[in-house]
Amino acid sequence: MLLRSGILTASDGEAVALENATAASGVVLVCEHASSLLPPSAGDLGLSPEALSSHIAWDPGALAIAGRLSTALDGLLVHQRFSRLIYDCNRPPESPAAMPEKSEIYEIPGNRDLGPAERYARTAALYIPFHDRLAAEITRLQGAGLQPVIVTVHTFTPVYFGKPREVEIGILHDADSRLADAMLEASKSGPYRVERNSPYGPEDGVTHTLRLHAIPQGLANVMIEVRNDLVRDSAGVEAVASYLADLISKALERAA
Amino acid sequence: MLLRSGILTASDGEAVALENATAASGVVLVCEHASSLLPPSAGDLGLSPEALSSHIAWDPGALAIAGRLSTALDGLLVHQRFSRLIYDCNRPPESPAAMPEKSEIYEIPGNRDLGPAERYARTAALYIPFHDRLAAEITRLQGAGLQPVIVTVHTFTPVYFGKPREVEIGILHDADSRLADAMLEASKSGPYRVERNSPYGPEDGVTHTLRLHAIPQGLANVMIEVRNDLVRDSAGVEAVASYLADLISKALERAA
Repeated sequence: MLLRSGILTASDGEAVALENATAASGVVLVCEHASSLLPPSAGDLGLSPEALSSHIAWDPGALAIAGRLSTALDGLLVHQRFSRLIYDCNRPPESPAAMPEKSEIYEIPGNRDLGPAERYARTAALYIPFHDRLAAEITRLQGAGLQPVIVTVHTFTPVYFGKPREVEIGILHDADSRLADAMLEASKSGPYRVERNSPYGPEDGVTHTLRLHAIPQGLANVMIEVRNDLVRDSAGVEAVASYLADLISKALERAA
Repeated sequence: MLLRSGILTASDGEAVALENATAASGVVLVCEHASSLLPPSAGDLGLSPEALSSHIAWDPGALAIAGRLSTALDGLLVHQRFSRLIYDCNRPPESPAAMPEKSEIYEIPGNRDLGPAERYARTAALYIPFHDRLAAEITRLQGAGLQPVIVTVHTFTPVYFGKPREVEIGILHDADSRLADAMLEASKSGPYRVERNSPYGPEDGVTHTLRLHAIPQGLANVMIEVRNDLVRDSAGVEAVASYLADLISKALERAA
């Protein structure tokens, strides 16, 4: 079906990718913004190379952190293989932010005045398979007797609209704050500046994946945001991921 | 995938149905509002039996007309098997009218304050498969050397918000009016009161299917609206369908 949409072709591969598919724990790491890759059909969306590799295209470092967490917690990792510039899988189809015309300071010409056919094609090619697969994996884990725990992993830019951000790690939640509360409690003595629902929160529409897959089903969940200057090299990734793995483990022990 | 959504189960069958699948012409009849059927998972949406069988749930008579046109024109017929109260397949996911909280005089309690998980599940279960299949069939016809012509078939209620409607048949179009113009020209000497973009038009968001499948591809297209009191019995259906088949045939001859 996706081939006909014209967004992805056979040589582009699937929109969704799995790592650690035989993971033994119920932890599910989710990375909606793992990649800056554009499918060839998208061209450059009218953007400069600088914009195409910036934080508006992806969350630099997020997949590396999520991969490390997947190993440390023996959890499944589900990630989107294409850039959020085509479709931001952490936004529902009805949101203007799903295929944004503007992101921070960048206009995105290739997303201007999209008609319903193009919006449908992108939704069918990128959003539906991603969330269908995630839902299927969660169901599979439950069928195997595991209790799924949904952890979405993001990074944010240290400077936004010219303003530096002081927070280093954000622990975000929507209506269900159980896991976030426990992680925030465990973070009190740590080396990082950790804050609740920061640098943005559920009121900004960023908890879509949690609202889709965790909250209606009553599954423990959290959204993690890491300032991307902390994970620019492998030492930084290792340090942050070890710290987060420890926070999550402690939080899950408390909740158990 | 759809089974997991919880909207449709295996015993409900597919969302989309085809008739005259080996049709020899390029005409594709589309009926988004063919059925008042609710999947068992939907319950009664909080509606009375009267509302559940009214025009807010479906277009009474539309499938009968479309079936007759399919035979007369040797065209493929694609129809949605479930009520538009669950998902109106002539509306994109981002439209409030896709899962309306209110339709004419009826509040729809089961559609109130839908969360993203429910909106996603309905979109994945009903909208995506319907339009994916329609797109696939159009591509198949083109591959067979045919020139697809998209004809969507609807009916409308003779009394809306207490006000009678005089128009009997509406010939609706969006940006591409070629086929509609030719049908309107051919309708001048006929027995029915036929009007352009009436009782509503593209400004009311009713041309979604045309905008998805016909206009970007340059395919000839039209949306037909029949006042449903004209097709309450088989004689009425036969009369209207014969008349419309004649209009379409004449219009296609002129355009050829």
